[in-house]
Amino acid sequence: MKTSFLRDQIVLKKSFLCLGLDSDLDKIPKHLLNESDPIFSFNKILLDSLNKLIVAVKINTAFYEAYGHKGWKTLERTIKYINKNYPDLFTIADAKRGDIGNTSDKYAKAFFSSMDFDSVTVSPYMGNDSVEPFLAYNNKHTILLALTSNKGSNDFQISSNQENNLFKKVLKISKQWKNSNNLMYVVGATKASFLKDIRSIVPNSFLLIPGIGAQGGDLIETFKNGANKDVGLLVNSSRSIIYAGDGEDFIKYSYNEAHRLQQEMQILLND
Amino acid sequence: MKTSFLRDQIVLKKSFLCLGLDSDLDKIPKHLLNESDPIFSFNKILLDSLNKLIVAVKINTAFYEAYGHKGWKTLERTIKYINKNYPDLFTIADAKRGDIGNTSDKYAKAFFSSMDFDSVTVSPYMGNDSVEPFLAYNNKHTILLALTSNKGSNDFQISSNQENNLFKKVLKISKQWKNSNNLMYVVGATKASFLKDIRSIVPNSFLLIPGIGAQGGDLIETFKNGANKDVGLLVNSSRSIIYAGDGEDFIKYSYNEAHRLQQEMQILLND
Repeated sequence: MKTSFLRDQIVLKKSFLCLGLDSDLDKIPKHLLNESDPIFSFNKILLDSLNKLIVAVKINTAFYEAYGHKGWKTLERTIKYINKNYPDLFTIADAKRGDIGNTSDKYAKAFFSSMDFDSVTVSPYMGNDSVEPFLAYNNKHTILLALTSNKGSNDFQISSNQENNLFKKVLKISKQWKNSNNLMYVVGATKASFLKDIRSIVPNSFLLIPGIGAQGGDLIETFKNGANKDVGLLVNSSRSIIYAGDGEDFIKYSYNEAHRLQQEMQILLND
Repeated sequence: MKTSFLRDQIVLKKSFLCLGLDSDLDKIPKHLLNESDPIFSFNKILLDSLNKLIVAVKINTAFYEAYGHKGWKTLERTIKYINKNYPDLFTIADAKRGDIGNTSDKYAKAFFSSMDFDSVTVSPYMGNDSVEPFLAYNNKHTILLALTSNKGSNDFQISSNQENNLFKKVLKISKQWKNSNNLMYVVGATKASFLKDIRSIVPNSFLLIPGIGAQGGDLIETFKNGANKDVGLLVNSSRSIIYAGDGEDFIKYSYNEAHRLQQEMQILLND
Protein backbone atom coordinates (compact mmCIF):
# COMPACT_ATOMS: atom_id res chain seq x y z
CA MET A 1 0.00 0.00 0.00
CA LYS A 2 1.26 3.45 -0.84
CA THR A 3 1.32 6.03 1.94
CA SER A 4 -0.64 8.40 -0.33
CA PHE A 5 -3.54 5.91 -0.15
CA LEU A 6 -3.22 5.83 3.66
CA ARG A 7 -3.34 9.64 3.75
CA ASP A 8 -6.55 9.58 1.69
CA GLN A 9 -8.10 7.05 4.04
CA ILE A 10 -7.32 9.25 7.05
CA VAL A 11 -9.16 12.16 5.41
CA LEU A 12 -12.04 9.96 4.27
CA LYS A 13 -12.60 8.17 7.58
CA LYS A 14 -11.67 11.17 9.74
CA SER A 15 -9.52 8.82 11.77
CA PHE A 16 -5.87 7.96 12.25
CA LEU A 17 -6.70 5.10 14.60
CA CYS A 18 -4.85 1.79 14.43
CA LEU A 19 -6.44 -1.25 16.04
CA GLY A 20 -3.95 -3.45 17.87
CA LEU A 21 -4.85 -7.14 17.85
CA ASP A 22 -2.91 -8.31 20.94
CA SER A 23 -5.38 -11.16 21.17
CA ASP A 24 -4.84 -13.46 24.13
CA LEU A 25 -6.75 -16.67 24.94
CA ASP A 26 -6.65 -15.78 28.64
CA LYS A 27 -8.37 -12.45 28.04
CA ILE A 28 -10.91 -12.85 25.24
CA PRO A 29 -14.59 -13.33 26.21
CA LYS A 30 -15.11 -16.84 27.54
CA HIS A 31 -17.95 -17.77 25.15
CA LEU A 32 -15.50 -17.60 22.21
CA LEU A 33 -13.42 -20.45 23.64
CA ASN A 34 -16.00 -22.84 22.12
CA GLU A 35 -15.06 -21.72 18.59
CA SER A 36 -12.64 -23.85 16.56
CA ASP A 37 -10.17 -20.93 16.32
CA PRO A 38 -11.18 -18.58 19.19
CA ILE A 39 -8.62 -15.88 18.47
CA PHE A 40 -9.51 -15.71 14.78
CA SER A 41 -13.21 -15.44 15.72
CA PHE A 42 -12.40 -12.66 18.18
CA ASN A 43 -10.33 -10.79 15.56
CA LYS A 44 -13.04 -11.22 12.93
CA ILE A 45 -15.77 -9.77 15.16
CA LEU A 46 -13.56 -6.79 15.97
CA LEU A 47 -12.65 -6.17 12.33
CA ASP A 48 -16.20 -6.56 11.04
CA SER A 49 -17.46 -4.06 13.59
CA LEU A 50 -14.66 -1.49 13.73
CA ASN A 51 -13.29 -1.34 10.17
CA LYS A 52 -14.92 2.00 9.37
CA LEU A 53 -13.52 3.66 12.49
CA ILE A 54 -9.92 2.65 11.87
CA VAL A 55 -7.36 3.09 9.09
CA ALA A 56 -4.83 0.49 10.22
CA VAL A 57 -4.51 -2.84 12.03
CA LYS A 58 -1.45 -3.86 14.02
CA ILE A 59 -0.99 -7.55 14.75
CA ASN A 60 1.40 -8.29 17.58
CA THR A 61 3.13 -11.49 16.50
CA ALA A 62 4.14 -12.52 20.05
CA PHE A 63 0.53 -13.22 20.95
CA TYR A 64 0.31 -15.72 18.06
CA GLU A 65 3.75 -17.32 18.46
CA ALA A 66 2.87 -18.09 22.06
CA TYR A 67 0.53 -20.78 20.66
CA GLY A 68 3.11 -22.32 18.34
CA HIS A 69 2.30 -23.34 14.76
CA LYS A 70 -1.44 -23.16 15.53
CA GLY A 71 -1.03 -19.55 16.58
CA TRP A 72 0.95 -18.86 13.44
CA LYS A 73 -1.92 -20.32 11.42
CA THR A 74 -4.34 -17.96 13.20
CA LEU A 75 -2.01 -15.08 12.31
CA GLU A 76 -2.09 -16.15 8.65
CA ARG A 77 -5.89 -16.50 8.67
CA THR A 78 -6.27 -13.05 10.22
CA ILE A 79 -4.06 -11.20 7.72
CA LYS A 80 -5.67 -13.11 4.83
CA TYR A 81 -9.12 -12.13 6.08
CA ILE A 82 -8.13 -8.47 6.31
CA ASN A 83 -6.49 -8.37 2.89
CA LYS A 84 -9.53 -9.99 1.29
CA ASN A 85 -12.30 -8.08 3.06
CA TYR A 86 -10.75 -4.80 4.12
CA PRO A 87 -8.07 -3.89 1.58
CA ASP A 88 -8.48 -0.25 2.66
CA LEU A 89 -6.79 -1.03 6.00
CA PHE A 90 -3.05 -0.51 6.35
CA THR A 91 -1.63 -3.66 7.96
CA ILE A 92 1.26 -3.79 10.40
CA ALA A 93 3.09 -6.91 11.57
CA ASP A 94 4.33 -5.78 14.96
CA ALA A 95 7.20 -8.23 15.06
CA LYS A 96 10.23 -6.14 16.13
CA ARG A 97 12.51 -8.21 13.90
CA GLY A 98 16.04 -7.48 12.66
CA ASP A 99 19.13 -9.62 12.00
CA ILE A 100 22.11 -9.89 9.63
CA GLY A 101 21.27 -9.40 5.96
CA ASN A 102 20.64 -12.98 4.83
CA THR A 103 18.38 -13.49 7.86
CA SER A 104 16.45 -10.22 7.55
CA ASP A 105 15.83 -11.31 3.95
CA LYS A 106 13.92 -14.30 5.33
CA TYR A 107 11.92 -12.20 7.80
CA ALA A 108 11.00 -9.78 5.00
CA LYS A 109 9.91 -12.73 2.89
CA ALA A 110 7.73 -14.06 5.73
CA PHE A 111 5.88 -10.81 6.37
CA PHE A 112 5.87 -9.09 2.96
CA SER A 113 5.70 -11.98 0.47
CA SER A 114 4.13 -14.94 2.25
CA MET A 115 1.63 -12.99 4.35
CA ASP A 116 1.40 -9.73 2.38
CA PHE A 117 1.51 -7.30 5.30
CA ASP A 118 1.92 -3.64 4.29
CA SER A 119 4.54 -3.07 6.96
CA VAL A 120 6.60 -4.62 9.72
CA THR A 121 8.21 -3.17 12.84
CA VAL A 122 11.99 -3.59 12.96
CA SER A 123 14.61 -2.96 15.65
CA PRO A 124 17.49 -0.68 14.56
CA TYR A 125 20.15 -2.14 16.87
CA MET A 126 22.03 -4.05 14.14
CA GLY A 127 22.15 -1.13 11.69
CA ASN A 128 21.75 -0.61 7.96
CA ASP A 129 22.29 -4.08 6.48
CA SER A 130 19.80 -5.53 8.99
CA VAL A 131 17.07 -3.14 7.83
CA GLU A 132 17.73 -2.69 4.11
CA PRO A 133 16.35 -6.13 3.11
CA PHE A 134 12.97 -4.89 4.39
CA LEU A 135 13.34 -1.50 2.68
CA ALA A 136 14.02 -3.19 -0.66
CA TYR A 137 10.33 -4.09 -1.07
CA ASN A 138 8.36 -1.62 -3.18
CA ASN A 139 5.22 -0.17 -1.56
CA LYS A 140 6.00 -1.98 1.68
CA HIS A 141 7.01 -0.09 4.79
CA THR A 142 9.52 -0.66 7.55
CA ILE A 143 8.52 0.85 10.87
CA LEU A 144 11.76 1.36 12.75
CA LEU A 145 11.82 1.54 16.55
CA ALA A 146 12.96 5.01 17.51
CA LEU A 147 11.56 5.97 20.92
CA THR A 148 9.43 3.32 22.57
CA SER A 149 6.68 3.83 25.16
CA ASN A 150 8.05 1.59 27.92
CA LYS A 151 10.10 2.43 31.00
CA GLY A 152 13.14 0.61 29.59
CA SER A 153 13.44 3.17 26.80
CA ASN A 154 15.43 5.19 29.35
CA ASP A 155 18.19 2.58 29.41
CA PHE A 156 19.62 3.14 25.93
CA GLN A 157 17.32 5.27 23.75
CA ILE A 158 17.56 8.37 25.94
CA SER A 159 20.79 9.59 27.52
CA SER A 160 21.56 12.35 30.01
CA ASN A 161 23.19 14.32 27.20
CA GLN A 162 20.16 15.15 25.01
CA GLU A 163 22.23 15.75 21.89
CA ASN A 164 23.56 12.20 22.04
CA ASN A 165 20.19 10.55 22.41
CA LEU A 166 20.28 7.22 20.59
CA PHE A 167 16.75 7.63 19.21
CA LYS A 168 17.81 10.84 17.44
CA LYS A 169 20.84 9.06 16.01
CA VAL A 170 18.54 6.30 14.75
CA LEU A 171 16.33 8.88 13.00
CA LYS A 172 19.25 10.77 11.45
CA ILE A 173 21.28 7.79 10.28
CA SER A 174 18.34 5.74 8.99
CA LYS A 175 17.34 8.63 6.70
CA GLN A 176 20.55 7.97 4.75
CA TRP A 177 19.81 4.29 4.09
CA LYS A 178 18.86 2.94 0.69
CA ASN A 179 15.10 3.23 0.01
CA SER A 180 14.66 5.19 3.23
CA ASN A 181 11.48 6.66 1.76
CA ASN A 182 9.89 3.35 2.84
CA LEU A 183 10.63 4.10 6.51
CA MET A 184 8.16 4.96 9.24
CA TYR A 185 9.03 5.20 12.93
CA VAL A 186 7.66 3.95 16.26
CA VAL A 187 7.38 6.81 18.74
CA GLY A 188 5.82 6.14 22.15
CA ALA A 189 2.96 8.46 23.10
CA THR A 190 4.13 8.44 26.69
CA LYS A 191 7.05 10.56 25.44
CA ALA A 192 4.96 13.27 23.72
CA SER A 193 7.40 15.96 24.85
CA PHE A 194 10.01 14.55 22.47
CA LEU A 195 7.69 14.68 19.46
CA LYS A 196 8.66 18.21 18.40
CA ASP A 197 12.34 17.23 18.27
CA ILE A 198 11.45 14.12 16.30
CA ARG A 199 9.39 16.08 13.79
CA SER A 200 12.31 18.44 13.18
CA ILE A 201 14.42 15.43 12.10
CA VAL A 202 11.77 13.48 10.15
CA PRO A 203 9.17 16.09 9.11
CA ASN A 204 7.56 13.92 6.44
CA SER A 205 7.59 10.39 7.84
CA PHE A 206 4.60 8.57 9.22
CA LEU A 207 4.89 7.90 12.94
CA LEU A 208 3.28 4.90 14.61
CA ILE A 209 2.29 5.93 18.12
CA PRO A 210 1.60 3.11 20.57
CA GLY A 211 0.78 3.74 24.21
CA ILE A 212 -2.51 5.66 23.97
CA GLY A 213 -4.92 4.02 26.41
CA ALA A 214 -3.57 1.24 28.61
CA GLN A 215 -0.07 2.72 28.60
CA GLY A 216 -1.22 6.24 29.53
CA GLY A 217 -0.31 8.46 26.56
CA ASP A 218 -2.32 11.58 25.72
CA LEU A 219 -3.99 11.94 22.30
CA ILE A 220 -4.29 15.73 22.14
CA GLU A 221 -0.68 16.35 23.17
CA THR A 222 0.46 13.72 20.70
CA PHE A 223 -1.44 15.33 17.84
CA LYS A 224 -0.35 18.86 18.71
CA ASN A 225 3.34 17.94 18.75
CA GLY A 226 3.42 15.09 16.26
CA ALA A 227 1.10 15.83 13.34
CA ASN A 228 2.53 17.20 10.10
CA LYS A 229 0.68 18.80 7.17
CA ASP A 230 -0.48 15.34 5.99
CA VAL A 231 -1.31 14.25 9.58
CA GLY A 232 1.50 11.66 9.40
CA LEU A 233 0.34 9.79 12.47
CA LEU A 234 -1.10 6.39 13.22
CA VAL A 235 -2.21 6.14 16.82
CA ASN A 236 -2.53 2.58 18.06
CA SER A 237 -4.82 1.34 20.76
CA SER A 238 -4.89 -2.36 21.65
CA ARG A 239 -6.04 -3.43 25.10
CA SER A 240 -8.30 -0.44 25.81
CA ILE A 241 -10.40 -1.32 22.74
CA ILE A 242 -10.26 -5.09 22.41
CA TYR A 243 -10.78 -5.81 26.11
CA ALA A 244 -13.28 -2.99 26.75
CA GLY A 245 -15.93 -5.62 27.49
CA ASP A 246 -15.67 -9.27 28.40
CA GLY A 247 -19.19 -10.68 28.03
CA GLU A 248 -21.10 -11.99 25.01
CA ASP A 249 -21.82 -8.35 24.12
CA PHE A 250 -18.13 -7.32 24.36
CA ILE A 251 -18.14 -5.84 20.86
CA LYS A 252 -20.56 -3.09 21.96
CA TYR A 253 -17.97 -1.84 24.44
CA SER A 254 -15.13 -2.21 21.95
CA TYR A 255 -17.13 -0.25 19.38
CA ASN A 256 -17.88 2.51 21.89
CA GLU A 257 -14.23 2.89 22.84
CA ALA A 258 -13.03 2.91 19.22
CA HIS A 259 -15.81 5.34 18.30
CA ARG A 260 -14.87 7.63 21.19
CA LEU A 261 -11.26 7.72 19.97
CA GLN A 262 -12.31 8.27 16.35
CA GLN A 263 -14.55 11.17 17.41
CA GLU A 264 -11.66 12.77 19.33
CA MET A 265 -9.53 12.37 16.22
CA GLN A 266 -12.23 13.88 14.02
CA ILE A 267 -12.26 17.03 16.18
CA LEU A 268 -8.46 17.28 16.00
CA LEU A 269 -8.50 16.76 12.22
CA ASN A 270 -11.19 19.40 11.71
CA ASP A 271 -9.27 22.05 13.68
CA MET B 1 20.00 -26.23 31.43
CA LYS B 2 22.45 -24.85 33.93
CA THR B 3 25.62 -23.26 32.60
CA SER B 4 27.64 -25.54 34.90
CA PHE B 5 26.35 -28.49 32.83
CA LEU B 6 27.36 -26.67 29.64
CA ARG B 7 30.85 -26.12 31.05
CA ASP B 8 31.15 -29.83 31.81
CA GLN B 9 30.08 -30.70 28.27
CA ILE B 10 32.76 -28.42 26.82
CA VAL B 11 35.43 -30.24 28.84
CA LEU B 12 33.98 -33.66 28.05
CA LYS B 13 33.57 -33.14 24.30
CA LYS B 14 36.66 -30.92 23.95
CA SER B 15 34.53 -28.56 21.92
CA PHE B 16 32.78 -25.23 22.27
CA LEU B 17 31.19 -25.52 18.84
CA CYS B 18 27.60 -24.47 18.23
CA LEU B 19 25.86 -25.76 15.12
CA GLY B 20 23.68 -23.15 13.41
CA LEU B 21 20.64 -24.58 11.66
CA ASP B 22 19.96 -21.78 9.13
CA SER B 23 18.23 -24.39 7.00
CA ASP B 24 16.92 -23.10 3.71
CA LEU B 25 14.87 -25.04 1.10
CA ASP B 26 16.80 -23.28 -1.67
CA LYS B 27 20.14 -24.51 -0.35
CA ILE B 28 19.70 -27.98 1.12
CA PRO B 29 20.69 -30.97 -1.06
CA LYS B 30 18.13 -31.52 -3.81
CA HIS B 31 17.41 -35.18 -3.00
CA LEU B 32 15.90 -34.14 0.36
CA LEU B 33 13.14 -32.19 -1.38
CA ASN B 34 11.31 -35.51 -1.85
CA GLU B 35 10.93 -35.91 1.92
CA SER B 36 7.63 -34.90 3.57
CA ASP B 37 9.43 -32.30 5.72
CA PRO B 38 12.72 -31.66 3.91
CA ILE B 39 14.14 -29.19 6.41
CA PHE B 40 13.43 -31.45 9.37
CA SER B 41 15.10 -34.34 7.52
CA PHE B 42 18.11 -32.14 6.78
CA ASN B 43 18.35 -31.04 10.43
CA LYS B 44 17.97 -34.62 11.68
CA ILE B 45 20.81 -35.92 9.50
CA LEU B 46 23.07 -33.10 10.70
CA LEU B 47 22.21 -33.65 14.38
CA ASP B 48 22.56 -37.45 14.22
CA SER B 49 25.98 -37.12 12.63
CA LEU B 50 27.46 -34.13 14.45
CA ASN B 51 26.06 -34.30 17.99
CA LYS B 52 29.32 -35.53 19.53
CA LEU B 53 31.35 -32.74 17.94
CA ILE B 54 29.14 -29.91 19.20
CA VAL B 55 27.88 -28.68 22.56
CA ALA B 56 25.12 -26.37 21.33
CA VAL B 57 22.59 -25.92 18.51
CA LYS B 58 21.35 -22.53 17.35
CA ILE B 59 18.12 -22.44 15.36
CA ASN B 60 17.59 -19.27 13.38
CA THR B 61 13.84 -18.69 13.54
CA ALA B 62 13.70 -16.51 10.39
CA PHE B 63 14.47 -19.51 8.19
CA TYR B 64 11.40 -21.30 9.59
CA GLU B 65 9.01 -18.32 9.68
CA ALA B 66 9.72 -17.78 6.00
CA TYR B 67 7.60 -20.91 5.38
CA GLY B 68 4.70 -19.79 7.58
CA HIS B 69 2.93 -22.16 9.97
CA LYS B 70 4.48 -25.16 8.22
CA GLY B 71 7.91 -23.73 8.90
CA TRP B 72 6.94 -23.12 12.50
CA LYS B 73 5.90 -26.78 12.74
CA THR B 74 9.32 -27.81 11.43
CA LEU B 75 10.91 -25.60 14.08
CA GLU B 76 8.84 -27.35 16.76
CA ARG B 77 9.69 -30.80 15.43
CA THR B 78 13.39 -29.93 15.39
CA ILE B 79 13.59 -28.66 18.97
CA LYS B 80 11.48 -31.59 20.18
CA TYR B 81 13.82 -34.03 18.41
CA ILE B 82 16.86 -32.42 20.01
CA ASN B 83 15.37 -32.33 23.51
CA LYS B 84 14.37 -35.97 23.27
CA ASN B 85 17.48 -37.43 21.66
CA TYR B 86 20.29 -35.05 22.56
CA PRO B 87 19.49 -33.51 25.96
CA ASP B 88 23.21 -32.84 26.39
CA LEU B 89 23.04 -30.10 23.72
CA PHE B 90 22.44 -26.51 24.80
CA THR B 91 19.70 -25.12 22.57
CA ILE B 92 19.44 -21.54 21.32
CA ALA B 93 16.43 -19.95 19.62
CA ASP B 94 18.13 -17.27 17.55
CA ALA B 95 15.06 -15.06 17.36
CA LYS B 96 16.33 -11.55 18.25
CA ARG B 97 13.07 -10.76 20.03
CA GLY B 98 12.25 -7.97 22.50
CA ASP B 99 9.16 -5.82 23.15
CA ILE B 100 7.27 -4.15 26.02
CA GLY B 101 6.81 -6.32 29.12
CA ASN B 102 3.44 -7.95 28.42
CA THR B 103 4.65 -8.84 24.91
CA SER B 104 8.08 -10.14 25.89
CA ASP B 105 6.17 -12.34 28.35
CA LYS B 106 4.51 -14.00 25.37
CA TYR B 107 7.77 -14.44 23.47
CA ALA B 108 9.35 -15.98 26.58
CA LYS B 109 6.38 -18.33 26.86
CA ALA B 110 6.75 -19.34 23.18
CA PHE B 111 10.44 -20.19 23.38
CA PHE B 112 10.93 -21.31 27.01
CA SER B 113 7.61 -22.96 27.93
CA SER B 114 6.00 -24.15 24.70
CA MET B 115 9.18 -25.20 22.90
CA ASP B 116 11.56 -25.66 25.86
CA PHE B 117 14.62 -23.98 24.35
CA ASP B 118 17.45 -23.40 26.85
CA SER B 119 18.00 -19.87 25.59
CA VAL B 120 16.83 -17.16 23.23
CA THR B 121 18.62 -14.20 21.64
CA VAL B 122 17.11 -10.82 22.55
CA SER B 123 17.70 -7.28 21.31
CA PRO B 124 18.53 -4.77 24.07
CA TYR B 125 17.10 -1.67 22.31
CA MET B 126 13.94 -1.42 24.47
CA GLY B 127 15.77 -1.80 27.79
CA ASN B 128 15.20 -3.59 31.08
CA ASP B 129 11.46 -4.30 31.13
CA SER B 130 11.70 -5.75 27.60
CA VAL B 131 14.34 -8.27 28.71
CA GLU B 132 13.40 -9.11 32.31
CA PRO B 133 10.41 -11.33 31.34
CA PHE B 134 12.96 -13.65 29.69
CA LEU B 135 15.36 -13.43 32.65
CA ALA B 136 12.58 -14.46 35.03
CA TYR B 137 12.80 -18.09 33.87
CA ASN B 138 14.97 -20.29 36.08
CA ASN B 139 17.74 -22.22 34.31
CA LYS B 140 16.88 -20.50 31.02
CA HIS B 141 19.25 -18.03 29.43
CA THR B 142 18.82 -14.75 27.61
CA ILE B 143 21.51 -14.05 25.05
CA LEU B 144 21.56 -10.29 24.66
CA LEU B 145 22.88 -8.68 21.48
CA ALA B 146 25.95 -6.67 22.42
CA LEU B 147 28.31 -6.39 19.45
CA THR B 148 27.10 -8.08 16.28
CA SER B 149 29.21 -9.41 13.41
CA ASN B 150 27.63 -7.44 10.55
CA LYS B 151 28.70 -4.22 8.89
CA GLY B 152 25.68 -2.35 10.29
CA SER B 153 27.03 -2.80 13.83
CA ASN B 154 29.02 0.36 13.08
CA ASP B 155 25.84 2.44 12.84
CA PHE B 156 24.81 2.40 16.50
CA GLN B 157 26.77 -0.18 18.51
CA ILE B 158 30.16 1.44 17.96
CA SER B 159 30.76 5.19 18.10
CA SER B 160 33.80 7.34 17.33
CA ASN B 161 34.17 7.99 21.05
CA GLN B 162 35.18 4.54 22.30
CA GLU B 163 34.11 5.23 25.89
CA ASN B 164 30.54 5.90 24.73
CA ASN B 165 30.21 2.73 22.71
CA LEU B 166 26.63 1.52 22.94
CA PHE B 167 27.66 -2.13 23.19
CA LYS B 168 29.67 -1.35 26.34
CA LYS B 169 26.69 0.48 27.80
CA VAL B 170 24.52 -2.56 27.05
CA LEU B 171 26.97 -4.82 28.90
CA LYS B 172 27.29 -2.51 31.90
CA ILE B 173 23.61 -1.66 32.35
CA SER B 174 22.27 -5.16 31.71
CA LYS B 175 24.47 -6.51 34.53
CA GLN B 176 22.27 -4.52 36.94
CA TRP B 177 18.99 -6.08 35.78
CA LYS B 178 17.01 -8.51 37.87
CA ASN B 179 18.22 -12.14 37.42
CA SER B 180 21.14 -10.89 35.29
CA ASN B 181 22.98 -14.10 36.18
CA ASN B 182 20.84 -15.65 33.41
CA LEU B 183 22.43 -13.37 30.78
CA MET B 184 24.81 -14.34 28.01
CA TYR B 185 25.92 -12.03 25.19
CA VAL B 186 26.25 -12.11 21.40
CA VAL B 187 29.68 -10.87 20.34
CA GLY B 188 30.62 -11.02 16.67
CA ALA B 189 33.86 -12.82 15.91
CA THR B 190 34.62 -10.31 13.18
CA LYS B 191 35.24 -7.83 16.03
CA ALA B 192 37.77 -9.96 17.95
CA SER B 193 39.80 -6.85 18.80
CA PHE B 194 36.99 -5.71 21.11
CA LEU B 195 36.87 -8.98 23.02
CA LYS B 196 39.42 -7.95 25.66
CA ASP B 197 37.35 -4.87 26.52
CA ILE B 198 34.22 -6.99 26.69
CA ARG B 199 35.84 -9.54 28.99
CA SER B 200 36.85 -6.75 31.37
CA ILE B 201 33.17 -5.81 31.75
CA VAL B 202 31.62 -9.31 31.80
CA PRO B 203 34.45 -11.60 32.95
CA ASN B 204 32.17 -14.51 33.87
CA SER B 205 29.42 -14.50 31.24
CA PHE B 206 29.13 -16.94 28.39
CA LEU B 207 29.61 -15.28 25.01
CA LEU B 208 27.93 -16.56 21.85
CA ILE B 209 30.25 -15.86 18.95
CA PRO B 210 28.71 -15.97 15.49
CA GLY B 211 30.64 -15.14 12.38
CA ILE B 212 33.31 -17.85 12.33
CA GLY B 213 33.35 -19.29 8.83
CA ALA B 214 31.14 -17.65 6.21
CA GLN B 215 31.39 -14.26 7.91
CA GLY B 216 35.19 -14.32 8.19
CA GLY B 217 35.95 -14.37 11.92
CA ASP B 218 39.12 -15.98 13.29
CA LEU B 219 38.89 -18.79 15.84
CA ILE B 220 42.34 -18.50 17.41
CA GLU B 221 42.09 -14.72 17.93
CA THR B 222 38.61 -15.15 19.34
CA PHE B 223 39.76 -17.75 21.85
CA LYS B 224 42.87 -15.82 22.86
CA ASN B 225 40.91 -12.64 23.61
CA GLY B 226 37.54 -14.04 24.63
CA ALA B 227 38.03 -17.20 26.71
CA ASN B 228 37.82 -17.00 30.48
CA LYS B 229 38.90 -19.57 33.08
CA ASP B 230 35.78 -21.67 32.32
CA VAL B 231 36.19 -21.16 28.54
CA GLY B 232 32.92 -19.14 28.52
CA LEU B 233 32.56 -19.24 24.75
CA LEU B 234 30.18 -20.81 22.29
CA VAL B 235 31.44 -20.39 18.76
CA ASN B 236 28.73 -20.79 16.15
CA SER B 237 29.14 -21.95 12.61
CA SER B 238 26.14 -22.28 10.32
CA ARG B 239 26.60 -22.08 6.57
CA SER B 240 30.22 -23.32 6.47
CA ILE B 241 29.13 -26.60 8.10
CA ILE B 242 25.58 -27.26 6.90
CA TYR B 243 26.24 -26.35 3.26
CA ALA B 244 29.76 -27.85 3.08
CA GLY B 245 28.44 -30.36 0.54
CA ASP B 246 25.38 -30.37 -1.66
CA GLY B 247 25.06 -33.93 -2.99
CA GLU B 248 23.55 -37.09 -1.52
CA ASP B 249 26.75 -37.48 0.48
CA PHE B 250 26.62 -33.91 1.86
CA ILE B 251 26.85 -35.10 5.46
CA LYS B 252 30.41 -36.35 4.89
CA TYR B 253 31.50 -32.79 4.07
CA SER B 254 29.52 -31.32 6.95
CA TYR B 255 31.10 -33.83 9.32
CA ASN B 256 34.59 -33.04 8.05
CA GLU B 257 34.10 -29.30 8.52
CA ALA B 258 32.62 -29.68 12.03
CA HIS B 259 35.38 -32.14 12.93
CA ARG B 260 38.06 -29.76 11.67
CA LEU B 261 36.63 -26.98 13.88
CA GLN B 262 36.32 -29.33 16.89
CA GLN B 263 39.94 -30.39 16.44
CA GLU B 264 41.08 -26.75 16.35
CA MET B 265 39.10 -26.17 19.52
CA GLN B 266 40.61 -29.22 21.19
CA ILE B 267 44.10 -27.85 20.58
CA LEU B 268 43.10 -24.47 22.03
CA LEU B 269 41.47 -26.12 25.07
CA ASN B 270 44.53 -28.29 25.72
CA ASP B 271 46.92 -25.33 25.69
